[in-house]
Amino acid sequence: MQASLEIQPAITAIASLVDQRFAQLLPLPDDPRRLIFEATRYAVMGGGKRMRPLLVISACDLFHVDRERALRVALAIEAVHCYSLVHDDLPCMDDDDLRRGRPTTHKAFDEASAVLAGDALLTLAFEILAHEATHEDPRVRIDLVMALAKASGLDGMIGGQAMDIAAETTMLDLPTTTRLQQLKTGALIAFCLEAGGIMGKASPDMHIKLRGYAHDVGLAFQIADDLMDIGGSEEKAGKKLRKDAGAGKSTFVSLLGEERARAQATMLIDQAIAHLSVFGAEADMLRAIAHFTIERDH
Amino acid sequence: MQASLEIQPAITAIASLVDQRFAQLLPLPDDPRRLIFEATRYAVMGGGKRMRPLLVISACDLFHVDRERALRVALAIEAVHCYSLVHDDLPCMDDDDLRRGRPTTHKAFDEASAVLAGDALLTLAFEILAHEATHEDPRVRIDLVMALAKASGLDGMIGGQAMDIAAETTMLDLPTTTRLQQLKTGALIAFCLEAGGIMGKASPDMHIKLRGYAHDVGLAFQIADDLMDIGGSEEKAGKKLRKDAGAGKSTFVSLLGEERARAQATMLIDQAIAHLSVFGAEADMLRAIAHFTIERDH
Repeated sequence: MQASLEIQPAITAIASLVDQRFAQLLPLPDDPRRLIFEATRYAVMGGGKRMRPLLVISACDLFHVDRERALRVALAIEAVHCYSLVHDDLPCMDDDDLRRGRPTTHKAFDEASAVLAGDALLTLAFEILAHEATHEDPRVRIDLVMALAKASGLDGMIGGQAMDIAAETTMLDLPTTTRLQQLKTGALIAFCLEAGGIMGKASPDMHIKLRGYAHDVGLAFQIADDLMDIGGSEEKAGKKLRKDAGAGKSTFVSLLGEERARAQATMLIDQAIAHLSVFGAEADMLRAIAHFTIERDH
Repeated sequence: MQASLEIQPAITAIASLVDQRFAQLLPLPDDPRRLIFEATRYAVMGGGKRMRPLLVISACDLFHVDRERALRVALAIEAVHCYSLVHDDLPCMDDDDLRRGRPTTHKAFDEASAVLAGDALLTLAFEILAHEATHEDPRVRIDLVMALAKASGLDGMIGGQAMDIAAETTMLDLPTTTRLQQLKTGALIAFCLEAGGIMGKASPDMHIKLRGYAHDVGLAFQIADDLMDIGGSEEKAGKKLRKDAGAGKSTFVSLLGEERARAQATMLIDQAIAHLSVFGAEADMLRAIAHFTIERDH
């Protein structure tokens, strides 16, 4: 639990910065678009652990990237993450009423607003990356756009969501479950680290280290999520739990058993940290995040 | 009707190219993602007049942009247009069962697939633009990304859709209806012309001419759409008509009356063509498109 003590102030600070910047990026207009701006702000502000922004900023710190620029990339990835949650929660998808302890966007507003707010956040992510305030070198910006599009598209997150829907009617084996999770949550986590490398103009070798770390942390994160789904508290999680087991879905826990899943997560975290051995103290936050990933009991 | 005779072969040729390229960009995978790829292909292939691709390619022709590159930009804008139709047709939005004479995507597949297919098309658009095959200069590509994000986001198309939803409960006046349409359909049409200017590295003065043309054609296009909504044939249109009047929505026709609306559209087309006076024969297709916009009886 020591790592959590280190990481909590960083989480709190970044969460507050993220909210502040989204409020600036989405000022409420005094015209008929106001409701959709409110829904978009609701979807992206005031909730979540902001793990992806923390990962982006920590990866950028490895290369001493300006904090304001790193924060813009963090906002872009968080916008994509939040859009995916809003669409995922829709009645036609997972049909969830609760997210981060609050009504989901379509419950707090309506379904049409939730669809549009999600669309707006995805679009906003690319606008943020394309803006010259993110980096003066257009090549860096276009590399970020390409990486984010790939991570969030049919060969990334959306592909994973599609597999997840297919999993409702078919039992998946361990390799397929691993691939599903690598696409559904792993691809965006990988983007967080890759973005640090792009912003810092990292060497190909450094990019490989970052990819290794992201791969292992991403899977450990998902295993921890599956463990929380069977053993966590709904109050702390702020969302409905035990849905996977109820739906008969294959998870790492159902496939490996609780004990082996826990051991696998620990092994992955050790492996993730080993990828960082080329870095010094500047990688301490990434090390702390790795530990935190499997220690969170919320 | 002469202009239509000129334009039809171009429309047919581009429509076939667009379908061909989307089939290449979205090869069906042999894994659980297959259904979502099928839904995405269904949403983007085999239908529509492909007016936006035709506009992009015609605008690129002004500056002798390589046809293959222009086509990539055309695919990006068509992907965004089709995603907006898929989400717009959802039961929680316009609840349409028919589009381009075929069942809408959520009818042919299911709602979850339609949501994801729309998301995938929006993401794909940015991936296409970011790819170096679109242009070797990263500045050109990032300018395209920025322009598309703005045109399709809260200050563009999505903002217009939000106003459209608000219009269901409030009667709008002519200036607000004009603004709604400039955002909802005008912004993407403006992007088509702007993209030609970006690809062709046009002078600021040329950009102003293109913007003027796009503004006028965009509004004329919408007026023609409103006229079709009251007087067109559902069979030819391939979708349900007379919805606006039924819903008591403000349209250019309800606000101006049919005759004045028709005169306004003709005036806008003359004005659009006047913006092209600096160009020679290379702008003939844009002139023909302007005429076609208000002559189409389908």
